[in-house]
Amino acid sequence: MSVFLPKGTRDFLPEQMQVRLRAIDTIRAVFESFGFEPLETPAFERIETLSGKYGEEADKLMFRIHKRGRSAKPGECDLGLRYDLTVPLARVLAMNADLRLPFKRWQIQPVWRAERPQKGRFREFWQCDVDIAGSRSPLADAECIAVADAALRALGFEDYTIRVNDRRILTELAREAGASSLQEELSFLIALDKLDKIGLEGVERELVERGFEPDKLGTLWSAIAAPPTTEALLQTLQDVLSGVGLEGVDTLRTVIAAAEAMGVDPSRVRFDPSLARGADYYTGPVFEVAGDDPSVGSVAGGGRYDGLVGRLSGRELPAVGVSLGLERLITLLEAREDAGSMGPVADLLITVFDDGSAPAASRAATAFRAAGVKTELYIGDGRLKAQLKHADRRGYAWIALIGPDEASAGTVTLKNRRTWENTTLDLQAAVNKVSADRR
Amino acid sequence: MSVFLPKGTRDFLPEQMQVRLRAIDTIRAVFESFGFEPLETPAFERIETLSGKYGEEADKLMFRIHKRGRSAKPGECDLGLRYDLTVPLARVLAMNADLRLPFKRWQIQPVWRAERPQKGRFREFWQCDVDIAGSRSPLADAECIAVADAALRALGFEDYTIRVNDRRILTELAREAGASSLQEELSFLIALDKLDKIGLEGVERELVERGFEPDKLGTLWSAIAAPPTTEALLQTLQDVLSGVGLEGVDTLRTVIAAAEAMGVDPSRVRFDPSLARGADYYTGPVFEVAGDDPSVGSVAGGGRYDGLVGRLSGRELPAVGVSLGLERLITLLEAREDAGSMGPVADLLITVFDDGSAPAASRAATAFRAAGVKTELYIGDGRLKAQLKHADRRGYAWIALIGPDEASAGTVTLKNRRTWENTTLDLQAAVNKVSADRR
Repeated sequence: MSVFLPKGTRDFLPEQMQVRLRAIDTIRAVFESFGFEPLETPAFERIETLSGKYGEEADKLMFRIHKRGRSAKPGECDLGLRYDLTVPLARVLAMNADLRLPFKRWQIQPVWRAERPQKGRFREFWQCDVDIAGSRSPLADAECIAVADAALRALGFEDYTIRVNDRRILTELAREAGASSLQEELSFLIALDKLDKIGLEGVERELVERGFEPDKLGTLWSAIAAPPTTEALLQTLQDVLSGVGLEGVDTLRTVIAAAEAMGVDPSRVRFDPSLARGADYYTGPVFEVAGDDPSVGSVAGGGRYDGLVGRLSGRELPAVGVSLGLERLITLLEAREDAGSMGPVADLLITVFDDGSAPAASRAATAFRAAGVKTELYIGDGRLKAQLKHADRRGYAWIALIGPDEASAGTVTLKNRRTWENTTLDLQAAVNKVSADRR
Repeated sequence: MSVFLPKGTRDFLPEQMQVRLRAIDTIRAVFESFGFEPLETPAFERIETLSGKYGEEADKLMFRIHKRGRSAKPGECDLGLRYDLTVPLARVLAMNADLRLPFKRWQIQPVWRAERPQKGRFREFWQCDVDIAGSRSPLADAECIAVADAALRALGFEDYTIRVNDRRILTELAREAGASSLQEELSFLIALDKLDKIGLEGVERELVERGFEPDKLGTLWSAIAAPPTTEALLQTLQDVLSGVGLEGVDTLRTVIAAAEAMGVDPSRVRFDPSLARGADYYTGPVFEVAGDDPSVGSVAGGGRYDGLVGRLSGRELPAVGVSLGLERLITLLEAREDAGSMGPVADLLITVFDDGSAPAASRAATAFRAAGVKTELYIGDGRLKAQLKHADRRGYAWIALIGPDEASAGTVTLKNRRTWENTTLDLQAAVNKVSADRR
């Protein structure tokens, strides 16, 4: 009989977990340094809560849970695994009218999508999100960009670009090209979003197929195709656009300046009028961060979604957020030179000679741990040689030998694996020595 | 339109999350201090992996995920949400023959069971597990008891009892009472497990209904009904039992002594020959920790399950582990006097006067954060009075006012919310002052 993992999922063994825990702890500390508050929501939501929020394609990728009990019909599903952390947040806001606004929360949890598994794409993956609800200020949009930027730098990344756009600019472009409904606007976005993949001519052809007239866009089209500097492009659009498009340009200009004041290096920020971001719910600025290695794809993305909470609950609440994709960040971390050089799990191994000296070894373990020394008491079946090898493989700096002599004398023979020094000391002196070495 | 949570699930809002994160961080630190290594597994497993491992009742409580794609028949489920962290570990061990033994891992993740929701019982709840695979040594069993005990003490608990038993003693008792198959042994256990709920006579009646002859147990039965001291009871059983029952008694005696040497207060440990623990997979010592408040129930439990990995994979591997139930521990923590006295989310609020001074306020926020001060930049729509009230409600110790004067002079007016002192300082001096106050 053989055993498998579900398709598209992974176990994280100790070495991988050490990298993950270090990354999560770092990101959490940055989120907390900005005054975001922690939130967690259940793994599954009611199907009604999830459906129709992300677009049709996404609805198909949802994992659905079969209804329980006798009244359930075959195939009847009432719950779905969460697809992102944004819709659950919108539900929390809708259900908790007494949360003080602006509500700033961080949330680091897994999400699930039944995508076709391929290299670097998984069916269970973690998102690290911050969102700000209850503020229309462009400072909130800028803070989402700044906190993502600060998290990436805290993780040690330097080579990345932050692309920004505003959905209202895209709305205006879509209208100029002939869109006359939200449905048609989304159709325009889907075509435009393929620019990276199928190029300008491909997008033009697809727009025509979808019933648009891209030639009506004139100079705008060439600006999208080969964007000049951010400032020049903002100026061009400001001169040409009107209505919501102009609002988008104004907001974007403010957000970019505010992010810079919050410490974001302006040379990293690039206005990209083709950036759409997938989800249907965005309404204002959108942003996406990608490393300079194109094979990895975007590592963070977000935007403003002022309508989503209202659609869920009738309670209108502006909101903006950003999501860091933990899996791609981990891929980049593991590719760095220092990967694999994680510290050992413990500082010290205490060997166990025989049943008679085991109690003394156990008591010594408690004393070392009380002093903050991570201590493994050997509980395998190996003899002394195997125990020393075990400590070696795990890279422990210290070994404490407690044989019958040591047990009866209340001493410990300490081996320093770096200096090969052996010393027999009272238990307390040994504890002090190892504990001092750790600092 | 209204919005709901799925039945039996909860959101954890910031105040609850602070208690949870503190508890999880504490438990993780204790697990690491014993040299356990981190592991995480996917939320769902193949149905084949989960089924038949926990008993019939449990199989019914599994959340099943509907198969995706066109080939799926209505009602066809191929995945299930994990029911505990033990079966996923057994699968990891079965799949990774190169893991070095003994393999000691910690795992803190949610699990799901579709139980009828009731007070204090949830359909999504967290378990904090340590397990040791690849060691038959009673030191491994004792270490599981010791690490659970150390975690409870690190959380500040003092009033709890650790009940211990050995499944082999129960096997022997079941045989003496007439059981002649594993099926019948489990039937005996299910009846005995109800002792707390239906009392001695109730259990006796149920045993007879299930076809056993409890009167064959003689003095053993009275020992179960009213256990004397642990030592006296071990002696009684040692004199009366034979075969695997005697092995159980011997092991239990060793485990209790070893746990004591590892720092477990012996007055907390009580041998309870009626303790069965639910899951079908236990084979040796079992243990359960309960607080002295009977309304809360057990907060930790575990035992030895030498057959489970073999049943999954054909690879025989002894294993023992313990699981701490986070939800009940949190209930106890929240009931303590100091609950609700969690610190504020940030140390400092920076007010924002107007668009003109916002960049200076943003730059100041970056400077405070760089010095390790958790800093909220106000991004709401409120005027100064509302901003001060916001800081008050959140309990921040400091407020930094940066108006037009401060912005042009590069200064900050610091308000200390405890002393009501106001001082205008250079930005760097202000950063130093708040940063020094935090230490």
